Amino acid sequence: MQRPANAPKATRTTDVMNAIRARIASRALAADDRLPSIRSFAATMGVSPSTVVEAYDRLAAEGLIRARPGSGFYVSSAALPPLSLAKDQPQHDRAVDPFWVSRQSLDAASGALKPGCGWLPADWMPTEALRRAFRGLARAEDAVLADYGATRGSLALRRTLMARFADEGLEVSPEQVLLTMSGTQAIDLICRFLLRPGDTVLVDDPCYFNFRALLRAHQVKLVSVPYTPSGPDVASFEAVLDAERPRLYITVSGLHNPTGATMSPQTAHRVLNAAAACDLTIVEDDIFADFEPEPSARLAALDGLNRVIRIGSFSKTLSASLRCGFIAARADWIEQLVDLQVATGFGGPCAVATEIIASVLATGFYRKHVEELRRRLARARRDVGEKLQRIGIEPWLMPRGGFQLWCRLPDGCDSADVARAALADNIVLAPGNVFSTTQSATGFMRFNVAQCRDPKLMPALQRAIGR
Amino acid sequence: MQRPANAPKATRTTDVMNAIRARIASRALAADDRLPSIRSFAATMGVSPSTVVEAYDRLAAEGLIRARPGSGFYVSSAALPPLSLAKDQPQHDRAVDPFWVSRQSLDAASGALKPGCGWLPADWMPTEALRRAFRGLARAEDAVLADYGATRGSLALRRTLMARFADEGLEVSPEQVLLTMSGTQAIDLICRFLLRPGDTVLVDDPCYFNFRALLRAHQVKLVSVPYTPSGPDVASFEAVLDAERPRLYITVSGLHNPTGATMSPQTAHRVLNAAAACDLTIVEDDIFADFEPEPSARLAALDGLNRVIRIGSFSKTLSASLRCGFIAARADWIEQLVDLQVATGFGGPCAVATEIIASVLATGFYRKHVEELRRRLARARRDVGEKLQRIGIEPWLMPRGGFQLWCRLPDGCDSADVARAALADNIVLAPGNVFSTTQSATGFMRFNVAQCRDPKLMPALQRAIGR
Repeated sequence: MQRPANAPKATRTTDVMNAIRARIASRALAADDRLPSIRSFAATMGVSPSTVVEAYDRLAAEGLIRARPGSGFYVSSAALPPLSLAKDQPQHDRAVDPFWVSRQSLDAASGALKPGCGWLPADWMPTEALRRAFRGLARAEDAVLADYGATRGSLALRRTLMARFADEGLEVSPEQVLLTMSGTQAIDLICRFLLRPGDTVLVDDPCYFNFRALLRAHQVKLVSVPYTPSGPDVASFEAVLDAERPRLYITVSGLHNPTGATMSPQTAHRVLNAAAACDLTIVEDDIFADFEPEPSARLAALDGLNRVIRIGSFSKTLSASLRCGFIAARADWIEQLVDLQVATGFGGPCAVATEIIASVLATGFYRKHVEELRRRLARARRDVGEKLQRIGIEPWLMPRGGFQLWCRLPDGCDSADVARAALADNIVLAPGNVFSTTQSATGFMRFNVAQCRDPKLMPALQRAIGR
Repeated sequence: MQRPANAPKATRTTDVMNAIRARIASRALAADDRLPSIRSFAATMGVSPSTVVEAYDRLAAEGLIRARPGSGFYVSSAALPPLSLAKDQPQHDRAVDPFWVSRQSLDAASGALKPGCGWLPADWMPTEALRRAFRGLARAEDAVLADYGATRGSLALRRTLMARFADEGLEVSPEQVLLTMSGTQAIDLICRFLLRPGDTVLVDDPCYFNFRALLRAHQVKLVSVPYTPSGPDVASFEAVLDAERPRLYITVSGLHNPTGATMSPQTAHRVLNAAAACDLTIVEDDIFADFEPEPSARLAALDGLNRVIRIGSFSKTLSASLRCGFIAARADWIEQLVDLQVATGFGGPCAVATEIIASVLATGFYRKHVEELRRRLARARRDVGEKLQRIGIEPWLMPRGGFQLWCRLPDGCDSADVARAALADNIVLAPGNVFSTTQSATGFMRFNVAQCRDPKLMPALQRAIGR
C-alpha cells in the first residue's frame, strides 16, 4: 500500500525500508543481489530520490545491505531469512507464564497497543530534559565518556538519592548506597547474596510477575500472603512466617504492583514486628514512590535499614532507556554486594547513564515533571476507570496514584483467554494469573491507564471479553 | 590556605566548596546548622559574593546543603561524616584476592597510576566520535531516549556484530545474538544457565582474575590447565577433561589475558576435539579480538557455535562507560538466556548505550581508530618492554597485539608484596597470583603498556622491587 506523496518524509523513508526488507524476507532479493537503482526505486515507490538514498543509508547502517563505491547497493551476505525477524515479534503460542507480559511488552510489534505493560509511553517522559542532558554530555570530560565508573556508582547520584531518603526521614551514608544495572538486577544481587536454593521466600498474592520469574531462577520455594487494600493481610502474614520461616519478603511499597494499593501505617508497623520476631529480611521495591500524591508509610523509613533493604530505579518517571537501579542497605551488606556486582558484572550501570540521570534530577525540572505526571495520571485513572466500567470491567480499588488499575473481568471471563485473543489484534494485556502464586486471579487483569488512550482499545477489549 | 584573588574562578569556587565541606566534616557545622551568609563568607574567603553563590548552589545540588527560601542555606540532614567519603578510595588493607585489582582499579584515587588495570586510558578512546554520537542522540526519537529496548537488544547492533562474525567465516542469524549488560554479565548469564553448585569448571592458569571471582560466586569447583605461548597445554587439557569431566571451559581467545599469548590453530583444533569427546561447552571471551593485527584461529569460527559460546564487549576499544556485552550461541540457548536476562535484569543494556555503540561502529571511523590503536600499542609494547627489562622485569613473551605484558619479576620478588608497596605510592599493580588458581604465579605481574607512560612509574617500580 503506497502512501500519498504528501506523507511525512520519515514515514516515506520507513516505507521504502520496509519494501526492501520485504523483498529480502521473501527472497525476491537474495544475498549479494544488487538493489534497484535509486532513481528507478524512487519512481516505483512514488517518492523522491533523496528519500530512497536515506532509506538505503539506514539499511546499510543496519548491516542489511552494503554500498559498493561506484557500483550501488547490494544485499549483505548477513541478510536475514524471514523467520529470524519474526522471532523478535511477540510469540503468540507462548505459555501465559510470568514471562508472558514482559516478553510481549518488550518485543511488541510497532503499532501495538500495550495496556498490559508496566511503564509510561515515551511521550510522557521528560524527553526534552534528556535531550539537554545528552547535549551536555557531549561536552563532558573524556573519562566520563570512556571510563568505567566507581564500584558503587556515581557519587553525585548517590548523594541525590540520600537527599531524597532524608526527606522521608531515612538517614543513610554514601557507603549504604550501591547503584546497580537495573532495579530488577538490584533484587537479583540481594537474592544471590541472601538466598540459597531451597530457601523459602514470601511474596504478595497478587505480586509483580517478574518477582515470580526471578525467584524461579533462584530455585527457591515461594509462599504468598493475600494482599488487601491496606497491604498484606497481617494475620496471614504472621501465620505464614510462623509456619514457613521465610528468609525474605519481597514487596512493592508505595503503590503496590499490580493492585495500586497502599500499605497502612498500622500494617507496616505489624509487618515489621512480625519480621523482627522471625528474623525475616524485607526487600522494599520503591519503584512507584514518585507517583504518590503524598508519601505513605514506608518500611525502610520505619525500620532505618536494619532488616529492610530499599531498592528502586528511574525507569518509571525518567527513562527506561537509561538502565540504573539502586540498593540502600546496611553498610556491611553493601560492601559484600559491591564484590558480588564486580564478580558478576564488572561493576554497575553505564557511567554515562548515571551522569544523565544525576543531571536531570539535579534540576528543578524533574520535580515539575513528576507533579505534571501525577495530575495527568489522576485524570487518566478516572477516565479509563469509567470506560472500563462501562464494558463491565471493575477496578478492584481506585489507587491514590500511579498508572495501574487492577480490575475484575465480567463473570466467567478467563483473563488468559482474553489476553490471547487480544494479542491477535496486536494488543498486549496483563492477565491476572501471571501475578498470582496461587493462580487465583483468573478473573483479574492489570491495566496501565496511560497506555489505554487509543480509541480502538475499548471496542477491541469488548470483543475480547465477548461482550 | 587562601589562594590569590586572581586565581581562576573555578578554582576559587572549589576552594569555597572545600572550606564548607571541611567544616561539616569536622562538625564545626552540624546537620541543620545555617551556613555563613554569602556576604560574610565572601569576606572570610577573600572572594566575590558570586563565587560563594555558585559554590553554595553546587553544594546544594550535591545534597550537602539546602536552600530555605528567604532564610539562607542550611546543612542538610543527610550531610556526610568524613569517613564515609574515604570508603570510595582504595582500601590498602584488603587481601590480595581476585577482587584486589578490580576494586583498586575501579575506585583508584585521582592521580593514581594504574599499570595493573585492564583497560586503556580515556584519552586513547574514540571520544570525539562518542561526542558526535551523543549530539546525534539528543535528536533521536522519544522512544530511543525513554523506552526499554527489545529483549535481545538493538537489532542494528546485533546486525553489525553479525557482519563482523561473517568476516571471520562465522555465519549467525539474529536470534543467535543476545546483547547483555556487560561482557562479564554475559558469562554470568551463561554460568547461571549451564552450571549448578558443585559442577566443575576449567580455566587457564593463569587466567583473567575475574573468572575466578565470578566462578566463586557460582560455588563451582575450579580446575585449571597450564597456559603456554600457543594456548592451553593440550596434553594437560586432555588429561584434566578425562579426570575431572568439567562442564565448562572459559578462556580468552585472541590475545589471552593475562599472558597476551595466541592459541595456535593446531591447539584450537585439538581443544575442540577433546571438548567434543567429553561433551564440554566452551565460553570464548573475544574481548581483545580487535587488537589483533590479523585474526587468529578462533574456537567459535572452527566450531560454528555448536559447543562454543562467543562472548565479548566494547569496553576495551570503544568505551567502558557504555556498558554492553554480547553472547552469540545456539538459538535454543539464546532463547532461554533471554528469559533469564528478563527475570534477573528486566532486559539487557541501556538502549541509549547500544544506540551510541551502533552508530560509532557504523562509521568508517571506528576501523581507523582501531588501526591507530594497534600502531600506538605496538610502539608502547616495545618501549615499555625495554624499560621493564632494564630494571630486571622480563616479559614472558612479546604479544602480537594488545596492551598486556605478562612479566617475570627478579628472583625472590613476591608480586603481592610489590603491589602492596606500590599502592602506598598510589600505584595500582596486578600481582601474578590474582590470576592463578594454583597460586603458582608469585613471581609474575601483568602490566598494561598504555598505562605505563608516566615517567614517575619506572623509578617507583624499581623501589618497590627493591632494586
